[in-house]
Amino acid sequence: MNPLSTQPYKGTRDYYPEDKFVQNHIFNVWRKVVERFGYQEYGAPTLEPLDMYAAKSGQELVNEQTYTFTDRGGRNVAIRPEMTPTISRMVAARRQELAYPARLYSIANFMRYERPQRGREREFWQLNVDLFGVDAITADAEIISIADAILKEFGASDGDYVIKVNNRHFIHYTMTQYLGLDEVQSLQMIKLLDRRAKVSNEAFREQAILIFGDDSRIESLEALLNAQTIDQLPEALQLSDALDELKKLFSLLAAQGVTAVVFDPTLMRGFDYYTGSVFEAFDTHPENNRSLFGGGRYDGLVGLFGAEPISAVGMAPGNTMIENFLAVHDLLPLYRSTTDVYVVVIGDAYEKAASVATELRRAGVNVEIELSARKLDKQMKTALKKRIGYAMFVGAQDDTDYVLKNLETETEQRLTADDIVRHLAS
Amino acid sequence: MNPLSTQPYKGTRDYYPEDKFVQNHIFNVWRKVVERFGYQEYGAPTLEPLDMYAAKSGQELVNEQTYTFTDRGGRNVAIRPEMTPTISRMVAARRQELAYPARLYSIANFMRYERPQRGREREFWQLNVDLFGVDAITADAEIISIADAILKEFGASDGDYVIKVNNRHFIHYTMTQYLGLDEVQSLQMIKLLDRRAKVSNEAFREQAILIFGDDSRIESLEALLNAQTIDQLPEALQLSDALDELKKLFSLLAAQGVTAVVFDPTLMRGFDYYTGSVFEAFDTHPENNRSLFGGGRYDGLVGLFGAEPISAVGMAPGNTMIENFLAVHDLLPLYRSTTDVYVVVIGDAYEKAASVATELRRAGVNVEIELSARKLDKQMKTALKKRIGYAMFVGAQDDTDYVLKNLETETEQRLTADDIVRHLAS
Repeated sequence: MNPLSTQPYKGTRDYYPEDKFVQNHIFNVWRKVVERFGYQEYGAPTLEPLDMYAAKSGQELVNEQTYTFTDRGGRNVAIRPEMTPTISRMVAARRQELAYPARLYSIANFMRYERPQRGREREFWQLNVDLFGVDAITADAEIISIADAILKEFGASDGDYVIKVNNRHFIHYTMTQYLGLDEVQSLQMIKLLDRRAKVSNEAFREQAILIFGDDSRIESLEALLNAQTIDQLPEALQLSDALDELKKLFSLLAAQGVTAVVFDPTLMRGFDYYTGSVFEAFDTHPENNRSLFGGGRYDGLVGLFGAEPISAVGMAPGNTMIENFLAVHDLLPLYRSTTDVYVVVIGDAYEKAASVATELRRAGVNVEIELSARKLDKQMKTALKKRIGYAMFVGAQDDTDYVLKNLETETEQRLTADDIVRHLAS
Repeated sequence: MNPLSTQPYKGTRDYYPEDKFVQNHIFNVWRKVVERFGYQEYGAPTLEPLDMYAAKSGQELVNEQTYTFTDRGGRNVAIRPEMTPTISRMVAARRQELAYPARLYSIANFMRYERPQRGREREFWQLNVDLFGVDAITADAEIISIADAILKEFGASDGDYVIKVNNRHFIHYTMTQYLGLDEVQSLQMIKLLDRRAKVSNEAFREQAILIFGDDSRIESLEALLNAQTIDQLPEALQLSDALDELKKLFSLLAAQGVTAVVFDPTLMRGFDYYTGSVFEAFDTHPENNRSLFGGGRYDGLVGLFGAEPISAVGMAPGNTMIENFLAVHDLLPLYRSTTDVYVVVIGDAYEKAASVATELRRAGVNVEIELSARKLDKQMKTALKKRIGYAMFVGAQDDTDYVLKNLETETEQRLTADDIVRHLAS
């Protein structure tokens, strides 16, 4: 028989302890920040019926990127490619029982069949933060504040990232009233704007003229694209009610000290379910100049499950993008073992050593113990390789104190078990 | 269009915050105990090549229970039904770089297509604890000690559960030398013993005679089955070397204070990969008299990946069984929100309230704030329904102290933000 491959499935990662340490750091920061804002954790199934995504997630995701199959009972299912439809389903199922505002979060894995590349893996982890039952723009401001607070908690400064903000009502108004496009043309223009960074200026202009039918509105389009703030928008747009939500949102964010936000009239976001505010955080580092994560308001999704519509706004940072962000900004944590001390066993003292280890564990110390009675240098090599902070040496049966060695400073002390507990706690 | 179903996929669960709270309690206890023994966390892909399980996981699991499909690139994959083959693959891939003993754990989800029933879900979570690179029985004793420590950490007492122990070498010796069976008969007898609790005594006896070919060895079999301790085994077995490992194991466990262990010569364990010690923890509660989880030594698995064999011993408690165990023994934790305080907003004081909320959050308090300017009784109802411990009331613009209400005792105090931080920390 040929040996089995040791490679992980294409586009996925094995997380060895050093890798898992980084992932846990990301998870811990996410968890800390969202709980600080009063969000409660939920969990959900890995599989969902495929038709749940067909409704609103966008054709590319459903037709090309979902992992979909028929189960042994004939059901068409998908490995979840995102959480938003699932949490909408869960809220719809308990819409009467839940207390609103319902502030919910999860940290979960997802799969998408994409070409693996930097910052994109077929299996990835996301924090999903969602707020249900609040129609007011205060909810949109809270979600964007959390996006900002998360990046700050990772150690980032304002200049390291920018959060671009737009609004689907405003986009609709711009397309139909300001640019005079019909529904079909609007969708084409939205898709073109979404791709703008990926095409040349010339190609962009040509395709825009194709959508308009002539070049008479190109200048209006360019005036829109050149606006970096609400104040720089063409006057015809300045006066529109469709800007009210955006103005209120920026005012709330300013009051809450969120300064890394800018208006971007071309920000579209891919998912079909967004209905109001949309936003996306971008890394500003020259080596990683890309989208980090985004979110927005999606008021229509809960209603697809037969319940009355419930207002919703949320976002979903992923682990891969965040890890790249931390790497280029030198914000990754240094690995350290969760183990406090390696018990080095001298000679045949295993039973004595095991009983000291038990004593230390009962006092809250994380203890690894030698099991194979190897030579002392081999045991020490293990402790060092694992980057454990301390080694302690247990030998003769009747000792009541032991050498504790700090493996970083290489200093040694002779201490009782009680003193070792105190020393490691401090 | 018909509304989409709000039900989770068959055999899986939605974890609302109250459910996730219990799951997190289980995960936290698992994590705490295994880190206390020096284990480091890893993570692994949800999908693996199907042929990885075909090798050793047992036919029922592969042919009837895996979620298997062909991906868009033509690969035959399975949603992992267990972790042991995956961690063996990961160890094989880095066998030169790892420090031994390699003590590794993960908390991850798995899927098996089984008939959903009490204690069995199609998607479930497991702690996997594995120790690689130690051939000595001290490793087996450590894994069983951890099993015991986990149940104790959940609050269980010795009488609440029993850990049954057996050994594959001893089983093999018993089948071939003591009962005189050939390889095929041995396998049949092992499967019969594995089902013993599920069939009547008569049916068991009949099937045993079928395997033997006559009833001449039935008394020998019964003498084996009646042994509750090593000392009660028939004399022919007492003298065997095949008992040495078991004797050493029980002696180590006794020295480490693990008293809830018993010898069970009929314990078999389903997976084909076990090679030495096997064990299984059982609930002793009359309402939940069933297996909780198990484990054992599987020295041959890493070698399937083309690497030299590496000794391995491990176990895998699952969340569903543990939750049932906690429920019948009245050991489930009471739900409490992770949120410390709900900020009740009086009138139009939202901006003031948001700024106080930010201040509290910076001091480490978990704060949820009203966003919709509802009537005060509605806001209070939300805080109570969410089982948040405190509400604070923010009104007029120039206040610097606020009413803090303990929602359990219904007592109120007027405090500054700083004092509220101190009060909630204590």
